[in-house]
Amino acid sequence: MQRFVVSLLLTVLSLSLYAKEQTRQILRLPDIPGVEILMCDFHMHTVFSDGTVWPTVRVGEAWQDGLHALAITDHIEYLPHKEDVKGDFNRSFEIAQNSAKALNLTLIRGAEITRSMPPGHLNAIFIKDANALQTEDWRDAVKAANDQDGFVFWNHPGWTGQQKDGKARWYQEHTDLLDSNWVHGIEVVNNDEYYPEVHQWCLDHHLTMIGNSDVHNPIAMSYDPVLGEHRPMTWVIAAENSPQALKQALLDGRTIVYWQDTLIGKEEFLRPLFNRCVSLSSSELNFTESSTILLQIQNPSDLQFTLKAENPPPGISYAESIDVPADRITLFQIRWDKKTPLPDLLQLDFVASNLWIAPGKGLPITFQFMTK
Amino acid sequence: MQRFVVSLLLTVLSLSLYAKEQTRQILRLPDIPGVEILMCDFHMHTVFSDGTVWPTVRVGEAWQDGLHALAITDHIEYLPHKEDVKGDFNRSFEIAQNSAKALNLTLIRGAEITRSMPPGHLNAIFIKDANALQTEDWRDAVKAANDQDGFVFWNHPGWTGQQKDGKARWYQEHTDLLDSNWVHGIEVVNNDEYYPEVHQWCLDHHLTMIGNSDVHNPIAMSYDPVLGEHRPMTWVIAAENSPQALKQALLDGRTIVYWQDTLIGKEEFLRPLFNRCVSLSSSELNFTESSTILLQIQNPSDLQFTLKAENPPPGISYAESIDVPADRITLFQIRWDKKTPLPDLLQLDFVASNLWIAPGKGLPITFQFMTK
Amino acid sequence: MQRFVVSLLLTVLSLSLYAKEQTRQILRLPDIPGVEILMCDFHMHTVFSDGTVWPTVRVGEAWQDGLHALAITDHIEYLPHKEDVKGDFNRSFEIAQNSAKALNLTLIRGAEITRSMPPGHLNAIFIKDANALQTEDWRDAVKAANDQDGFVFWNHPGWTGQQKDGKARWYQEHTDLLDSNWVHGIEVVNNDEYYPEVHQWCLDHHLTMIGNSDVHNPIAMSYDPVLGEHRPMTWVIAAENSPQALKQALLDGRTIVYWQDTLIGKEEFLRPLFNRCVSLSSSELNFTESSTILLQIQNPSDLQFTLKAENPPPGISYAESIDVPADRITLFQIRWDKKTPLPDLLQLDFVASNLWIAPGKGLPITFQFMTK
Amino acid sequence: MQRFVVSLLLTVLSLSLYAKEQTRQILRLPDIPGVEILMCDFHMHTVFSDGTVWPTVRVGEAWQDGLHALAITDHIEYLPHKEDVKGDFNRSFEIAQNSAKALNLTLIRGAEITRSMPPGHLNAIFIKDANALQTEDWRDAVKAANDQDGFVFWNHPGWTGQQKDGKARWYQEHTDLLDSNWVHGIEVVNNDEYYPEVHQWCLDHHLTMIGNSDVHNPIAMSYDPVLGEHRPMTWVIAAENSPQALKQALLDGRTIVYWQDTLIGKEEFLRPLFNRCVSLSSSELNFTESSTILLQIQNPSDLQFTLKAENPPPGISYAESIDVPADRITLFQIRWDKKTPLPDLLQLDFVASNLWIAPGKGLPITFQFMTK
Repeated sequence: MQRFVVSLLLTVLSLSLYAKEQTRQILRLPDIPGVEILMCDFHMHTVFSDGTVWPTVRVGEAWQDGLHALAITDHIEYLPHKEDVKGDFNRSFEIAQNSAKALNLTLIRGAEITRSMPPGHLNAIFIKDANALQTEDWRDAVKAANDQDGFVFWNHPGWTGQQKDGKARWYQEHTDLLDSNWVHGIEVVNNDEYYPEVHQWCLDHHLTMIGNSDVHNPIAMSYDPVLGEHRPMTWVIAAENSPQALKQALLDGRTIVYWQDTLIGKEEFLRPLFNRCVSLSSSELNFTESSTILLQIQNPSDLQFTLKAENPPPGISYAESIDVPADRITLFQIRWDKKTPLPDLLQLDFVASNLWIAPGKGLPITFQFMTK
Repeated sequence: MQRFVVSLLLTVLSLSLYAKEQTRQILRLPDIPGVEILMCDFHMHTVFSDGTVWPTVRVGEAWQDGLHALAITDHIEYLPHKEDVKGDFNRSFEIAQNSAKALNLTLIRGAEITRSMPPGHLNAIFIKDANALQTEDWRDAVKAANDQDGFVFWNHPGWTGQQKDGKARWYQEHTDLLDSNWVHGIEVVNNDEYYPEVHQWCLDHHLTMIGNSDVHNPIAMSYDPVLGEHRPMTWVIAAENSPQALKQALLDGRTIVYWQDTLIGKEEFLRPLFNRCVSLSSSELNFTESSTILLQIQNPSDLQFTLKAENPPPGISYAESIDVPADRITLFQIRWDKKTPLPDLLQLDFVASNLWIAPGKGLPITFQFMTK
Repeated sequence: MQRFVVSLLLTVLSLSLYAKEQTRQILRLPDIPGVEILMCDFHMHTVFSDGTVWPTVRVGEAWQDGLHALAITDHIEYLPHKEDVKGDFNRSFEIAQNSAKALNLTLIRGAEITRSMPPGHLNAIFIKDANALQTEDWRDAVKAANDQDGFVFWNHPGWTGQQKDGKARWYQEHTDLLDSNWVHGIEVVNNDEYYPEVHQWCLDHHLTMIGNSDVHNPIAMSYDPVLGEHRPMTWVIAAENSPQALKQALLDGRTIVYWQDTLIGKEEFLRPLFNRCVSLSSSELNFTESSTILLQIQNPSDLQFTLKAENPPPGISYAESIDVPADRITLFQIRWDKKTPLPDLLQLDFVASNLWIAPGKGLPITFQFMTK
Repeated sequence: MQRFVVSLLLTVLSLSLYAKEQTRQILRLPDIPGVEILMCDFHMHTVFSDGTVWPTVRVGEAWQDGLHALAITDHIEYLPHKEDVKGDFNRSFEIAQNSAKALNLTLIRGAEITRSMPPGHLNAIFIKDANALQTEDWRDAVKAANDQDGFVFWNHPGWTGQQKDGKARWYQEHTDLLDSNWVHGIEVVNNDEYYPEVHQWCLDHHLTMIGNSDVHNPIAMSYDPVLGEHRPMTWVIAAENSPQALKQALLDGRTIVYWQDTLIGKEEFLRPLFNRCVSLSSSELNFTESSTILLQIQNPSDLQFTLKAENPPPGISYAESIDVPADRITLFQIRWDKKTPLPDLLQLDFVASNLWIAPGKGLPITFQFMTK
């Protein structure tokens, strides 16, 4: 019977000793010296705006999904449950924070400034008082967030609710925000949407790339665990696992967006991650016995990669596309047409087509081999 | 972006045309002429008492899980969220009913009378006004439910919160309720608990066997879909899929409790169900060529069965235990020691150990074969 | 210990009574009055040519995969194991037939005539003596198969081993075979390859569409059960489950090829199958209360379908693409722009994009609704 | 089309460049400085005795399953396929060795001496010529294996084919073998059987614990990958991944048997493995705020553990049993009854019930905490 129990997600004190274990997922990434990759979701709702769960559920879900930090960002201007649910704009944070503390998660205070386009919706996180964001003019709300040293980002610029054609558009208001240094990032990914225009804006304007779930219902209703789906995440490359380090890394633009099977980020962050995940069984190709060599591609991480061959060297043939699944070793075969001379140093070029360093542009990868 | 969407679970009118499909599970059972097996959960909570989800979520979850009917039964006497969530005891039903209508589910008005033991907790469903159950004396609450023609059942009699040793106890108060015809069923199963004492009481006192989830959190947090877990259900064997037929069948005691891999119910309900699920590839054993015969056990239902052999006839040997998985054909081998004469009619006795017709008692099964 | 056991797959008599159950998959299809859909694979190899399993393994795998019939078709002209494995061309059939009998499967005697292109490789099944197919001239081998009343089909016409570009080509030799009525079908699908040219040839020349695994290794190495993969199959629409009815249906061209998530066949076979799998919760659209209606698409079969919308009527909107998963009910939403008048009979047109009635052409589907 | 392809499992030269990737499983274990854990299966059959697969299949399966070494051990005295399959007792090794080399696996030459009980069946591995083991007297065969510096172990002593009651028995012949130092290990596990008597004999007589599949059919027929089953393995704790180091470790008795969810081995090997897999989020219990503390049990390995509580200290309560799943963090709750004084150093004792250091005896585990 679960009557006064309701698991830790509700309240730490009411946990049953005898309930089935609750577990947290581990998403295995390689160690990168000097940095912690903090997995975050900065956009979600509860019954205190138009969501359908109690704030503690968001903490429990985040713990189960392996997140390090989360922000609950209920709408300031849209409160469809207000007939039944009272409480000011800080209430969902206050209810959730004991659960976050018990589970050793970073819970960030936040709110969603919910205006028509332009400027559209903006999330303010790392704020101190969400109530101060309830203003008549949206500029005052953004100013209030900045006055509290908040980190502000523009949500889902291509949302069809505000852009019929699903295409993100940049308005004068966004230039104003940028010029004031009042906005620091944009959602490149929101739920199941990716905005290529936003991806480019982030590169051009040094805005931090953000990816969030914007979840309203229980998370398992939106991302089916049976199908292995996961929520979009912002991976923050921080100096340590602390709120301060997290915020600093956000301000510095050190993020990777993890969306479906894809990683979106700057080349400087994606390349070392790939290099530490994937290795080859040999850096030498010894074709003495036969014209065919089998290599083993090792990927002990929980990320999968897709490699597309680019311009194979003369006389060398191999698969046009290689799936490198997670937690597996994959066979990779190289054939040499013995009529063609081999260079001492052979280079095989690929593009990791699920690591996006710019819109439509995958990460270039080169495998180098000595031949003899 | 899910902002004003929130799927049909919140409100029918706000559905996105472009969202990923929502699907409902089909639990395949054989057709039984003249009856409909209605899958039900009569015990669950929302933010309007101590649950953590909005009422519409319960409807959406029920639809996904393949239920035909559900009752939301928030506590009358336990309202830990009352500082934030207002609304009377009918409110969760009222909020949920449009979603249920849109999805063609039967939503039953209910409430949980939440008292110390005795009498413990009692659910009243098929009531007309939950507010009338808020009384000082628990007897008045039960009377109010009965005055409204409600169906009343005793919840989780062995809950450790009220019985330290997890053992259900029958008090004079329960005799009083029974004598007044004020209680009509008991939970044999609640969440992950089964009460063998209650199982026997139902048989002795003609009380309806009930099995419920008593879920407080999002359902996928309590029953892991990745592990194939499902909530406990009460299967009601009704004349048709209507609220009236459902209630009549409950009053008549026509139920099967589906719990983990087990079905709990009267032999008169379990036997025809088994017989329509499982069939053998042949009713003849022709040992002319060899002393070994392979039979194929066909089970096109989504239920699995475990059969334990009882007293094999002389000279005949076969496995002591057979797992008959769902949606599969299973090989079953019979060996004959040719020194022993065969009767014309051979009977092989089993017990279906996951079909419980009484505490500790599985359903006896006999396979009959002509020999020649 | 499995020493003398080796399961039924080796030899019926050596089965252990105590081994774990062996099970057979059931692929659920709707009943179609008057016909049996026989699931078949007519192309596979054993150690007796260049395969890597003993013949009984092919029977056991077929039983597990839910097949009704199989043909082992070892090469006549390619015997790389001949240093170690002796036996004539009938040997693999002879070894396997006791297992097939015990499991009630139809085992068809066959062989693969393995010649360079043209004419390439041809399978002869329903033959009586495979040894007679060992001839110098390939025409004599095909003639011998026909003299034995065999059913002959052309294998993998686009195999890159014989067509570098993977494109199937029709030669004069194939015209000769067709004119002589010596060839009766072609593989539209072989393993992971589909040949659109062959698909069209079958329609043009009334040749039977065939899909086979051509498996050499253990089946689970080629089709990963963890990923839900299955071997290609030829579904034969026969009057009953007998070798005679199966052969007659093949000669009559009554087949559907089941490949990955796709069914390939004539419209006359695919349309009734779809119609018996998929149904809608209502044939009326009652927009009185709101401009949005939720329908439920029921698909109790084990097949999944993808529907693409074609030319929505004015004022009516719905998803461009609907996934209808197997064994599920799927929500389908229709919106009406109330400014546009509704006809009494509303037609929604789709194409079932995974049911191929010709190369590049899905099955057209129409849902009809009364409005009021 | 797979015709001349048959994947690398048959022959390296015939690999297709375009085939679907073949992958190898990684079973994640913690690094243990100075040792390599080599995963091995030393007992399997091919068509060259009573198995049903070609020798190369065994290599391919071993690679896919993540093994480092394998021995093919066809029977000397039992050749049911001899009418069809020729070749001497070294033939299966010779056929398989090119595939093993290409995949960088250690293939060990072996054979199974197959006699009635006593002495039963014995595997000889690391031999040089299997043909020399074909002798009239079984003692000569074992001597021949030892003369070749083979490692000899007794197979499945409790096999019901030789011991009706499934109970292993030690005969004078085994004492003779032991005294001669002609036998070096015993199968504690064979396929789905575990022999507790043998487990004790290994401890008493310093015999190496071995666990093998003894697989005859394709591996996926015996161990269902869909259910997550795996073959039994012998994990050899070697100085490096080389045949010499592997053999030396076997002679030294440095093994762990991995069977179903259980590890069987000496405490000196199981304890460090457990300690490197499992860690707690804190070694301090700070009960200042509440009487309940949540700890997180981290297990980044692919092994799962079950911990049973032993004698909780006075005033401290926690779950009687904790499942610690693989690749997860598990919540662990400790409650303190504040009336009972806390010692400075609190010890919680458990038994890891799936780590067997002797028959019926799990590995004792202690978690220590400072309190303050």
